[in-house]
Formats: sequence, C-alpha cells, structure tokens
Amino acid sequence: MTIRRRKISVIGAGFTGATTALMLAQKELGDVVLVDIPQAEGPTKGKALDMLESTPVQGVDSNIVGTTDYADTAGSDLVIITAGVARKPGMSRDDLVSTNAKIMKSVTKSVVEHSPNTIIIVLTNPVDAMTYEVFRTSGFPKNRVIGQSGVLDTARFRTFVAQELNVSVEDVTGFVLGGHGDDMVPLVRYSYVGGIPLEKWLPKDRIDAIVERTRKGGGEIVNLLGNGSAYYAPAASLVQMAEAILKDKRRILPAVAYLEGEYGYNDMFLGVPTLLGGNGLEKVIELELTDEEKQALDKSAESVRKVMKLLD
Amino acid sequence: MTIRRRKISVIGAGFTGATTALMLAQKELGDVVLVDIPQAEGPTKGKALDMLESTPVQGVDSNIVGTTDYADTAGSDLVIITAGVARKPGMSRDDLVSTNAKIMKSVTKSVVEHSPNTIIIVLTNPVDAMTYEVFRTSGFPKNRVIGQSGVLDTARFRTFVAQELNVSVEDVTGFVLGGHGDDMVPLVRYSYVGGIPLEKWLPKDRIDAIVERTRKGGGEIVNLLGNGSAYYAPAASLVQMAEAILKDKRRILPAVAYLEGEYGYNDMFLGVPTLLGGNGLEKVIELELTDEEKQALDKSAESVRKVMKLLD
Amino acid sequence: MTIRRRKISVIGAGFTGATTALMLAQKELGDVVLVDIPQAEGPTKGKALDMLESTPVQGVDSNIVGTTDYADTAGSDLVIITAGVARKPGMSRDDLVSTNAKIMKSVTKSVVEHSPNTIIIVLTNPVDAMTYEVFRTSGFPKNRVIGQSGVLDTARFRTFVAQELNVSVEDVTGFVLGGHGDDMVPLVRYSYVGGIPLEKWLPKDRIDAIVERTRKGGGEIVNLLGNGSAYYAPAASLVQMAEAILKDKRRILPAVAYLEGEYGYNDMFLGVPTLLGGNGLEKVIELELTDEEKQALDKSAESVRKVMKLLD
Amino acid sequence: MTIRRRKISVIGAGFTGATTALMLAQKELGDVVLVDIPQAEGPTKGKALDMLESTPVQGVDSNIVGTTDYADTAGSDLVIITAGVARKPGMSRDDLVSTNAKIMKSVTKSVVEHSPNTIIIVLTNPVDAMTYEVFRTSGFPKNRVIGQSGVLDTARFRTFVAQELNVSVEDVTGFVLGGHGDDMVPLVRYSYVGGIPLEKWLPKDRIDAIVERTRKGGGEIVNLLGNGSAYYAPAASLVQMAEAILKDKRRILPAVAYLEGEYGYNDMFLGVPTLLGGNGLEKVIELELTDEEKQALDKSAESVRKVMKLLD
Repeated sequence: MTIRRRKISVIGAGFTGATTALMLAQKELGDVVLVDIPQAEGPTKGKALDMLESTPVQGVDSNIVGTTDYADTAGSDLVIITAGVARKPGMSRDDLVSTNAKIMKSVTKSVVEHSPNTIIIVLTNPVDAMTYEVFRTSGFPKNRVIGQSGVLDTARFRTFVAQELNVSVEDVTGFVLGGHGDDMVPLVRYSYVGGIPLEKWLPKDRIDAIVERTRKGGGEIVNLLGNGSAYYAPAASLVQMAEAILKDKRRILPAVAYLEGEYGYNDMFLGVPTLLGGNGLEKVIELELTDEEKQALDKSAESVRKVMKLLD
Repeated sequence: MTIRRRKISVIGAGFTGATTALMLAQKELGDVVLVDIPQAEGPTKGKALDMLESTPVQGVDSNIVGTTDYADTAGSDLVIITAGVARKPGMSRDDLVSTNAKIMKSVTKSVVEHSPNTIIIVLTNPVDAMTYEVFRTSGFPKNRVIGQSGVLDTARFRTFVAQELNVSVEDVTGFVLGGHGDDMVPLVRYSYVGGIPLEKWLPKDRIDAIVERTRKGGGEIVNLLGNGSAYYAPAASLVQMAEAILKDKRRILPAVAYLEGEYGYNDMFLGVPTLLGGNGLEKVIELELTDEEKQALDKSAESVRKVMKLLD
Repeated sequence: MTIRRRKISVIGAGFTGATTALMLAQKELGDVVLVDIPQAEGPTKGKALDMLESTPVQGVDSNIVGTTDYADTAGSDLVIITAGVARKPGMSRDDLVSTNAKIMKSVTKSVVEHSPNTIIIVLTNPVDAMTYEVFRTSGFPKNRVIGQSGVLDTARFRTFVAQELNVSVEDVTGFVLGGHGDDMVPLVRYSYVGGIPLEKWLPKDRIDAIVERTRKGGGEIVNLLGNGSAYYAPAASLVQMAEAILKDKRRILPAVAYLEGEYGYNDMFLGVPTLLGGNGLEKVIELELTDEEKQALDKSAESVRKVMKLLD
Repeated sequence: MTIRRRKISVIGAGFTGATTALMLAQKELGDVVLVDIPQAEGPTKGKALDMLESTPVQGVDSNIVGTTDYADTAGSDLVIITAGVARKPGMSRDDLVSTNAKIMKSVTKSVVEHSPNTIIIVLTNPVDAMTYEVFRTSGFPKNRVIGQSGVLDTARFRTFVAQELNVSVEDVTGFVLGGHGDDMVPLVRYSYVGGIPLEKWLPKDRIDAIVERTRKGGGEIVNLLGNGSAYYAPAASLVQMAEAILKDKRRILPAVAYLEGEYGYNDMFLGVPTLLGGNGLEKVIELELTDEEKQALDKSAESVRKVMKLLD
C-alpha cells in the first residue's frame, strides 16, 4: 500500500470511549478500533456498527470496528485508553487505584504486544498515576505515553468564562497545571479573553467562583447525571490531543507528562504545558512560577505521589 | 438583532436526542435546547452541560441548554421529536402505540404553544403513525411536519454495500419507499455504486441478503446492545434532514410525508422521496412503480393504516 | 419562506473579492453575489460560474452569482466591499484616496439602496478613511459599518511567530491596535504562544524583527508578486469577520470601528479590539495603554486624520 | 518521526495550481509545495506566503512553500501537475501538444528524481496525451499515473442540472467516459437526481442542452474571463481526487487511466470510471456500453490517439 489510513484504537467502549470513537471518525483521522472486554462484546460491536451506519449521512470515510480481540488493534498509530472503573459508593480510594492499575497493566500489555510503536493517551482516573502505570508497563519512551487532564479542565474553564461574559468560546483561553480536577492549579494570569487578561474582564470573586466551579467540574456533571460521569467533553479533549499528534500539528496543549527534573519533579507524571506532535509529547514547556503557584503545584504533586504509592 | 442564530429544540434527552443535539452543535446549525420530562431534569441538564463544555475544544459556537420547561424552546426554527418509549418485553404493540401517541400529543401541544411557526421532524416509532399524531395535534400545514425513516434505512443499506464491495460509502446510494424497517420497500433498481446500478456490482442473492439485513437493521443493533436501541445513525439521519431545512438546501431525501393522493394514498403519512428545504417538506416526488413495487408499497401502507387505527 | 439562506454580496470581483466569495461559499455562510462594474462583466460572471461549478465536488450548497447590477444584491444580510484601485507608480497618495473615496461613495449608495438593513465590512485601502466614507455615505448606525485591518495584521504576525518557533498557528495569538500595516501598533504583551506571553519564547530582537516584518507584510507580498497585492489572507480575514457576524458568534476580534470617545478619539474610524456578532460591531473593547502604546496610537490616529482630510 | 504529515507537491503556480494548493491546505491533507519555473519565482513564493498567512484565520495547520527547486518536493506522497501553456491565438494544436509534452517530460524527470514512489495526477491539456507522456517518462506503474478530466466534466454537468431543477448539487450525479470537454461521452442513463434517473426529471431536449453546455463548459469560462481559463472547478476536482488517494477512500470516480484491454483499448490513457485509493488508481471499472455509446467512445479514443501521435 502506497498510502494507508491511520489506525487508532480506543480501549474501553463505555460512553467516553464510544464518543471518542465517534469524534475520531467524524474527523476522518483514521480507522477506529473500539475494544472492550469479552463480557461487553455485544454492546461494543453494537455501538461500533451503529456509528459505522452513520458514516454515509455524515459524509465520512472511516471504518469503525468493535472487538474484544486485541489482535484487531495491531499496528495502531495511536491508542487511547479510557478503560477502568469509576469510584462507587463504599469503594475506598485505594481500591479504586488498585483496580484501575490492574486494568492498566493488562490493557497495556495487550496494546504493546500488537502495536509496539504506537503512541498512547490515557484518560483513566486517577490519571497521573494511571499514566505512570501505563508508562512503566509499556517500557515505552516518555514521549509515547501521555495523559489527558488539562485540555478538559481548560475546556470547562473556557466555557464558564464565555458564558459569564457572553462571548465566543473561541476567544477565551485558560491555563492549568498540576493534577486533574480538585488538584488543578489554575494560572489565571495566563488566561485571556480576546488576548486581554481575564483580570481585566472580571472581578476577582467572579474569577474565583469560576476556578472553583472548574475544579469541581467533573463532580457537577456526576451530580446532574445521577448515574455516571461526563463523557462528551472528555472525549472531545482526547480527540483534540489525538488530532495534534496524528496531524503532527505541534500544538501547545496541557498534558500529563513524564517529568525528569522539569518543575523540580522526577520520575512522575504531572499536568504541564507540552508540545504535542507527530512524535507524541515532544517537549515539556517550563514556566517560571510565582511562589504561590509553585506551592500549589507542590501540593498537587504531593497528592499525585500519594496515589502513585498505591500502585505497588 | 440584525442577524440571530437559528434555534433548534430536541425533545427527548435519551441517547438519540442527546446525540442529535451534539451533532447539531458540531455543525453550528444553531443553538440547541434539549428537553425532557421533569423526572429527567438532572441527566438532561448534565448531558447538555457536558456537551457545552466540549465546544471550546471542538471549536464551535453553539449554545446547548438542557431543560424541562418548554418556555425555553420558544421561537424554535426547528423541533426534533425523539421522545417516546421503546417496546419492552410483555408490552403489546397496541400499548406501545397508545403510550407514544399520548406522548406525541402532549409534546406537540407544548411545542406548538411556544413555537407556532416551527417545522417539526419526528423520529418516534412507529414513525408513520406518530408523525400523523403530531400533524393532527399541531394543526400545522403538511410541509411543516415530517417523519424520519428512509434516510436511516438507506444509510444502513449504503454501509452494507460499501463494506461488501470495499468502496467508499460516499459513492453508494440506496433508495427506499414505505414504512420503516420491516415494512421498508427497497427500490434496488435505484441504488448505485459510483452511478452504476447495484445489479452490475453484486449478484442477486448478495443484494437480497443486504436488503434483508437492512430491514432488520434496527433489530441487529438492539440485539447487540442487549439493552437499548440504535442512536448514532438515527441521530445523524435527523441532522441531515435538519441541515437540509435549516440551510434551505432543497435536497432530495426520503422522508415520511403526508400524502394527499400521491402514490394513490390519502390522509396518511408514508415514506416517499421528497424535497427538503427552507419550507420543510416542500414536495413529494412521485415515481412510476412496477407492479411488484406497488404491491409491496400497498402492503406497507396497509400496515401503517393498521397502526393509525390504534391512535384513536 | 419559513427559513431562508443568508445572502452576502461582495463588491469588487478582483482577486480578493473572488477569493472572498469562494471562501464564503465553502463555509456555506449563505448565497453569494459577486459584483463589479459593467466593464468587468465577463470576468465577474466567469469567476462566479467557475466557482459555482466547483460546489458539487466541494460538497457545498451555495449559489454564487456574478453580476454588474446592484438589484441582484437586494436584501443582503452582509455586504463586503473590496472594490477600489491599488496605488500605481506615479499616483500620488492624494489621488489614491480621492479615487477610492469616489468609488466608496458610489458603491455605498447602490448597496444601501437595495439593502438598507445590511451590515457592511470594508477592505479597501486606506481602510480607516474608506470605512469612514462608507459610514457617512450610508447613514448607517456605527455598528453596521466595519473595516478590516487587525485580523489580517495579526494573521501575519501569528504566521511568522509560528514559523519561528515551529509550532501550530492555532496556538499563537497576536494583538494590534491602530492603522493598517505601517501604522500598526502591536501590543506584544498581549501576544501569546500556548497562552504563555511571547516574551518568554523569543528574545526582544526576534520579536522586533517579526513586528517589523508584519508591518511590511503587505509590501512583502506585493514585492514577491511583482504585479498585484495579497488576496488569500485578506479574503480569509474578511470571511472570519463575516462568519462572526452571520453566525452571531460574539467574537472578540480587532476591527476598524467608529469611535465616539473610546481611547480618547472622536468621529473617526480606527483599529481597536471589538465584539463582532449578529448586530455587527457590537462593542469597542477599551484597554488601558502604557504611555508608549498611547503615543504610538496617537501617531497612528493622526495619520488616519490626515488621510480623512483628503476625503472632502 | 513516528507520524509525519503527508506531503503534496503542486507543479505550476498559475491560477489552477495556486487554487489547488489553497484547497489542499484548507483540508489539512498535508504540507504543500508549490513549484514553478525560475522566472516565476517571485509570484510563486508570494502566492504561497499569502496562503500561509491565511492559515491562522482559516484555523488550519498546513505548511505551504513556494519554490523553483524540485529538491523541495523530495519525498512527496502525491504530485499534481498543472504546468503547461494554454493554447493562444495563432498557435497550432500541434505546437500546443509539442510544447506541453516537453514540459511534461522535464517536470516528470524532476519529480521522479526526488519522489520515486509518489503518485502523480495530471491536469495539463490535452490531458489524455499529457498523462501518457508523464507515464512513459516516469516509468511508473500504471496505478501511479492518473489524469483528471471526468470529475470536472461531471461537476459542470451536476451544476447545470441542479440549477435547472432548483435542487441541491449534492443530490445530482453525472457520468462521463472518454476524452475531456468536446470529446466527452456522457452516459445520461447513469445520471440521477436523488437516485432517480435524469430522464424522469427533464425532457430530452433539456438534457441535450445541458450535455452540450457541459461539453463546451471550459470554453464558456474562457469566453467570459476573456483572458485565461477556468481554475476554481479544476482545482476542486484535483483536490477531490487527491483526497480519495491521500485518505485511501477507495472512491469510484471518473479518471484518465492507462488501459490494457479495458473497453477494447490498449496502451493509451482515456477517461473511464475508476477506483481511487491509497495505491492511486487501483482499478478500472468496466461497463457494458450500448452500441451508440461504444461508437462515441471509439471516436473519442481515436481523437486521443491522434494527439498521442504528436508526442513523438
């Protein structure tokens, strides 16, 4: 084959995985393989087929396959891991970490076996620790294992600001460091509307309220849905990262990156600004932080470390 | 306001309604109001908010609101009805029709109250009868009440043909008349690949198998999912019709239309080729049918009539 | 008609006007009327027809008509003026202003006669003065007459920064005030890469070089082309503004706005940050400027005033 | 590099070449190299830079380079040849063929030297003979040398039908065989509106008039422009073929293909239905023709043969 389509595998065919597959197909980023465990074979195949049947009216050429067999993922250019359990009532945090870590190990082994040269993006929570687990299980170089967190956090932040000011989301930017959600370290001074710093648009108390709402953004959706968690914005966030990589866009996006001294941390994954391109996470962008920001980031990193200890 | 965005309301915030809202927003066809009953307020608002939070990364400007209050739908340019129950084990067909007809009546009254000039597209099954119910409840002229069925049926048909021949779905067309699904009357002689009649590409038995699979296409997804029915392809089909109307494209698409003598039928809704544009269903396209086709269509119409009798 | 397509007229069927028409059609923003003087009837109709013949393969539904009769522009939602002469060797600046001002008067009268409620965007140079001419000839309120300059200047700036850093243009922003091109007042402190101020990415001398290249950006293209001036980036800039208005996006974009006290100026048009939405230029965004910036803006405004004096 | 962008070179930076480069960039199909002869260096670089400066506002990541050095085309995935002269008053047809054949030879040698594995699409007229020249000069296998003609002819045909019936171009299809323009062999029985044969929509004399207008479609634009020939629709046609190949879409499109017995012809290029995918022209689709159609195709082939004789 002179020119072949890209191939993207999405592990986990729940709402987020399925929505991710849909959005990848809509953008014709490549053929999509949606993978889940044997017990979920029917729904996985059903969702993939239903999506495939939407392609003629959506006017896109993307094959979408549902499977429980990792052999179907062979030769993937990109793998997106959404598999894992959500924390249920009565489940301790330790149990959550240990369960999802086991899933990461198992999934990663299967992925690597069939796509030894792929790039992996991880969504599963707690994402910093889970990305670490995928990293060490895969044995991949650090540029090929990436976690999602900041794109989603800033998407929520941008949405709330745009609503507050009644302006286009396209002209609002946000900036976060550190862990996902509660542990998020917002850099409000690097957030703008039409290029003008947010502080010129909104009083401090309104900004604080928006930051706080962003922090709890995942929980807000969980509370509304009553049963389950957000999937549209997480899926869109994964797809933005996927597109940056698959089209070698060299975008500057926040991502969960493996640190080797950057920001003063070592051998851990943490949310930082990065350059995403054809080699995956090509670079960590380092910023000078204020003392206050550095302290908040230290706290966030500490919190990630605690979770990482539960991995072993 | 000199220029204002279009407004589209989607009634029913289940999988199909929510996916429809997403796809409308992705295409920036207008602002979207997602409506469900008071008991579903949380999930309705949650899905809408989650979708809205995806807009910054999807790069689209569409407001999406979840609500249980029809006042929020006021002044809609287009309303899409996906509300209704699915047939459950132990439920008779009569019960299904009567339950969904009640829902149609109630929804339609609320819709019409707040958007007396809107165009309505109906997805709820059994779609021919439900569209009739919406039509008579609304008191709207026939061009402003339309049912979806043929776009989805042909989408499935096109998918299966494209897979069989390993060619782009973009170059495969299909053509159906009559009721949805089982009652579908395929016009294979009007189905093409790259403009070349399908009969030149595939032997009769393969075509027959594809027709049969299309007929049972909804059931195939139901069986795979185990719990629920198709929503990606139905949503995409609704959005194609919505786009034809909202952009006044004057597309030739199959739709469930009110007939006044066309094809020999009166005072009923049935799937036929139509012209969809800024006035809604602007025209029913009449075809000469072979005797065999006419007989199949009569049978399909008869089956619709039977269901219609259950409306009263 | 329940729902009708938007209508956009582009005055001037030269390279910029024609490319603008193409890009409007590609985005299905509405039907496009391309207008030029009777002497250019053939090429105007030829370009429009050629474009129209591209729509089937581009997969878009937009009618494109070439005409010399303003009656065809009747009822436009938006009018984009690209008409006017370019400065030729031996032509004094005064002659240029006086010639183009006459064209603006004539064009504006014809436009207003057939579309009294339209919004007008002006590209013709010198743009600040020409927009003023259109404004006073039209008698329109200030929100419905807008000039293009800053979107193009920042597009060039963003391109140069993205190239220098080898990153995606999507993550680079720029910010300018004041007149177009040479008179441009760049606000480098409001220019970012991935949300991080440009000063952290590049040394001052490199930024200065990029600012200087941006200032001369129009001339760089003129010199390369040898015969004619830029049209791709100007057309794309016009279309971004058009889209903001036609989709009521409420975007924060630089535009040439009528000032009534903002930034200390009165009764003149000048490039400032604005909010563009369904009402046209809905708001001028005011910034605190440093002394240096204010001085540069005063100089730019002075230069615009001088040209304005040539109008009478 | 784990994943790299596609690379597409466009030879000839005239209106068609430049417009093709623009449309390739708009679709983010890859980085674009626009090539012309040393004498045209300025305009080539100017157009490419102007286009590049439009990418930030168009929201696309595509590098566009203007060059006169084929070394910049190295490693292209696809090369599109638009170079060549147009027939001028006083120029004999033989002179045209011989001049363009020389250009094809020279261009092809340079292309092949730097991109030995590329696929080539040829637009230069007379296209059947010029594609042959590129084929034999390149020494490439037949699947990697393709001419454009039928996509453009059918685009015009579809436009005229859509206008006549006032329906969307998206629902009109056309079908041609044989040479470009005057030599075009339309298969009206394989042309449809909404899947319904064109004969059911229009009387024979109207169809004949549309066929005749399509045949002369290039000339109609030439006459209107007064100076130059069509470029928007030709560029869009090239880009549709390019997209089919670069995304391995396996589309069924008319193209100028090397024949080895198909339709009874040997060792020549002629317009036929083909399958375009990642390997280029993967297959010639053979149709049964009526006697009348076969005679017309023979005549068209004969006319191509005559031009081919001028190559040596």
